[in-house]
Amino acid sequence: MSLTLPLEFLLEIDKLKAVYRQTTVACDNNRFENSAEHSWHIALLAQVLAPYAEQPIDVSRVTLMLLLHDLVEIDAGDTFAFDTQVDMAAQSQHELQAAQRLFGLLPAKQAQAWTALWQEFEQAQSADAQFAKAMDRVLPLIQNMHNQGGSWARHRVSRSQVLARNRYLEYSAPKLWQFACEQIELAVSKGWLTAE
Amino acid sequence: MSLTLPLEFLLEIDKLKAVYRQTTVACDNNRFENSAEHSWHIALLAQVLAPYAEQPIDVSRVTLMLLLHDLVEIDAGDTFAFDTQVDMAAQSQHELQAAQRLFGLLPAKQAQAWTALWQEFEQAQSADAQFAKAMDRVLPLIQNMHNQGGSWARHRVSRSQVLARNRYLEYSAPKLWQFACEQIELAVSKGWLTAE
Repeated sequence: MSLTLPLEFLLEIDKLKAVYRQTTVACDNNRFENSAEHSWHIALLAQVLAPYAEQPIDVSRVTLMLLLHDLVEIDAGDTFAFDTQVDMAAQSQHELQAAQRLFGLLPAKQAQAWTALWQEFEQAQSADAQFAKAMDRVLPLIQNMHNQGGSWARHRVSRSQVLARNRYLEYSAPKLWQFACEQIELAVSKGWLTAE
Repeated sequence: MSLTLPLEFLLEIDKLKAVYRQTTVACDNNRFENSAEHSWHIALLAQVLAPYAEQPIDVSRVTLMLLLHDLVEIDAGDTFAFDTQVDMAAQSQHELQAAQRLFGLLPAKQAQAWTALWQEFEQAQSADAQFAKAMDRVLPLIQNMHNQGGSWARHRVSRSQVLARNRYLEYSAPKLWQFACEQIELAVSKGWLTAE
C-alpha cells in the first residue's frame, strides 16, 4: 500500500514519556513528572490562562507550540531550570540537532512548519512565544507552591533565580506576574525559597 | 488581590497523571501509560493525521477536544475498551457528573464551552468529534502493534472487537481504516489478536 503514515515519528515521540523532570506531579510529591504529561498540562494551562495575555495571541498556535516544545528532550534530555553548570551553547546545539532529527521524520511541509514553530518558541520574540514561555515558567511555580516548595526546596533555589525565570510574565501577562511575585514572597516566608 | 485564577481546576486536572490505562507506553512495554501522557500523544497524533480526515475538520478544535476528553476519568476512572462487564449507562452517568464537577471549577463561560466540547466528543456526531474518536481508536492500535500485541494480547482481545472499535475510521478517515484493517490482520497472524 502506498500510504505513508509518519509512524516512525508517532512512535519516536512516545519516548518523551520516559524523560523525567525535576518537578513532581501536584497529586504526588514523591513522583517525578515526565515531559509528556507536563506538555499536556501546560497546553491546557495556556487555554485556561489565555485571557490574561497582554498582547493578542493565537491560542491554538500557542497550544501546538507547547505540545511540541519539549520534544527535543528525547535526544537532548531535560535540563533543570536552575542548574548553573549547564553549558547553554552546547545544549542549544544539541537541541537543534534533536529538532532536525525528530521533525525530519514528518512529511516535508509539516517538518518545516514545526521546526519553525519550535524555533519561534526558543527565540521567544513573538507574542505567541512569549506567552508560551510564560506558561512554561508559571506551571512549575503552581506545582511547587502546592508541593511545599517541591523542586525549589529540594535544590535550594533562591528568590532571585525564580524572579528572573518568571520575568516573561511581566510583559506577556502582567496580572500573572503580580500573582507570581506574591507566590514567590510566600515561598520565601515559608522557607521553600532562599531569600537571596 | 482580585485575580481569580482557576488554580483549583489547574491543580485538580493534575490528577489525570495518576489515572492508568491498560495500554503500555511504546517505549516500554512494562510501563502502563497514564491518561495525561496519552492525551498529549493523541493531540499530536491528530495534528499529524489531520490530512487524512475525509470531512473538513477544525484541527485546533479536535486538539482541544482530545486534550480534554479523558478528564472525567479523574472521578470516573478509565474503563478498558474491551471490558464487556462495564455497566455503560452507569459509567456515562458517572462521567457526566465528573464533567460537571471538573469543568464547574472554571469561569462560567469556559465551563459551558468545555462541557459542550466534551459532550460533542462523547456523542460522536460532528466531523470533529468523529475524527477525534478515530484518533482515540487508532493510537492504541499503533502502540499495541509496536508492543507485540500489548493490551490486546494480555486480555485475549479478538479481531472482531478491534474491528468494531475502529469503525469510526471507516467514515472519518478511510485511508486510516485501510491501514487499521491491515494491521489487525497482521496482529491475528502473529497471534496478538484471536481470530474470532
